[in-house]
Amino acid sequence: MRVIYGVNPVKELLRGPSPGGLSELWLAEGARSAAVAELEKAARAAGARVKHAPRAKLDQLAGSDHHQGVVGVLEGDFRYVEVEDLLAAARSRGEPPFLVILDGVEDPHHLGAIARTAVAMGVHGLIIPRDRAVGVTPVVVKASAGLIDRCLVARVVNVARTVDELKEDGVWSVALAGDAAQEIGQLDLKMPTALVLGSEGEGVRPLVRKTCDHEARIAMAGSVESLSVSAAAAIALHEAARQRRGVDRQIVR
Amino acid sequence: MRVIYGVNPVKELLRGPSPGGLSELWLAEGARSAAVAELEKAARAAGARVKHAPRAKLDQLAGSDHHQGVVGVLEGDFRYVEVEDLLAAARSRGEPPFLVILDGVEDPHHLGAIARTAVAMGVHGLIIPRDRAVGVTPVVVKASAGLIDRCLVARVVNVARTVDELKEDGVWSVALAGDAAQEIGQLDLKMPTALVLGSEGEGVRPLVRKTCDHEARIAMAGSVESLSVSAAAAIALHEAARQRRGVDRQIVR
Repeated sequence: MRVIYGVNPVKELLRGPSPGGLSELWLAEGARSAAVAELEKAARAAGARVKHAPRAKLDQLAGSDHHQGVVGVLEGDFRYVEVEDLLAAARSRGEPPFLVILDGVEDPHHLGAIARTAVAMGVHGLIIPRDRAVGVTPVVVKASAGLIDRCLVARVVNVARTVDELKEDGVWSVALAGDAAQEIGQLDLKMPTALVLGSEGEGVRPLVRKTCDHEARIAMAGSVESLSVSAAAAIALHEAARQRRGVDRQIVR
Repeated sequence: MRVIYGVNPVKELLRGPSPGGLSELWLAEGARSAAVAELEKAARAAGARVKHAPRAKLDQLAGSDHHQGVVGVLEGDFRYVEVEDLLAAARSRGEPPFLVILDGVEDPHHLGAIARTAVAMGVHGLIIPRDRAVGVTPVVVKASAGLIDRCLVARVVNVARTVDELKEDGVWSVALAGDAAQEIGQLDLKMPTALVLGSEGEGVRPLVRKTCDHEARIAMAGSVESLSVSAAAAIALHEAARQRRGVDRQIVR
């Protein structure tokens, strides 16, 4: 059993591929907006039991008071997959693999935000270390606006080894690093690519970075620390998506 | 008097231009990391009183339990400026103005995240509506990693009128909209530019959008709603910063 909360996460779940995963929808007494009424209808249609309860009960279920009066209970745990499943997803879409590896991103808000951007940019899946980083918690689901459930997530024991194994599968790895020589837009990201992002404090760990095929930085005006890992991910993933869609850059003004 | 919390926000304040603004530094009893010791030393050097108290006292001061055992009390309120001050900042740096207008971004986490990205990308200042949107609260400061205090923020009564007035000052306005014909990278953002971002649900309001000189969208693979306003801001601001720094796009792999 796991819990998701907030209007958007529950909405995204109900319009995603497996709305039947929702077994219970808890609504705070007094939460009676149009958005909540719509959720209640969709949840009943998906076969969920709808329950009304005082807000304190929802706080307790969610482990947070940021639930906007809406908490969903899902059957089963978040289903992690294998790296091979990410590559299979790329094959089934007929696209060169486009993966994101998070090397120790410890803040659940960032993991959620990156998952959301990854879905928007057509990434085939995320890879996170099994031990060191945050897993998919309710905070992550909320920060992803519910989109983490549309995202394949693989957990691996050793990130450097995974980078090496991906190399054998023909996937180039690009470590984002503030002191890299090239800018992200100077690389060909249409190739099978795994983008590697490190934690905000330390960046990609030295061994993982050394194992990667390329390094790239993001052009900025301020200091390196001033860009969050979520913002860096958005910029780099957009650049890859732009190249893959063959969007030309031309000045029309 | 206002309050900031979290290790990074306090650290950024103390190494920013006005460390003396910190009048009190509250540390949770038992918070004894190297980072906290460094903050304590820097705060004393800046003339702040350092106080140790139970965590519950810090929760109460911060209005949140996300303070990591560190709460700062500052003299005075956040100092908003006028739009003219943003233009003056651009002039004094010898750069064409580069502004961000938030048309009703109501989530303090997004305002903070956008302020942080804006500082990283060399934006001369933010413009927010006086009535409709969130102001600079402790949550915003935390979400900006303390960088909102390095950012000029002007509040205006009427966003559409401000866009018109900026036009008279030679500043082109670009509304980000999912259904715009052009992609952001197709516009010349080296010109004096104000980038206009709307709220996540509704986007830029119709009247404001109509008043803008240009519209642009962000290339993506998923649905429009799947990109957060913070991620959209990061992508658009980076594109402008990239153009302004004259970074060429070339394929080197």
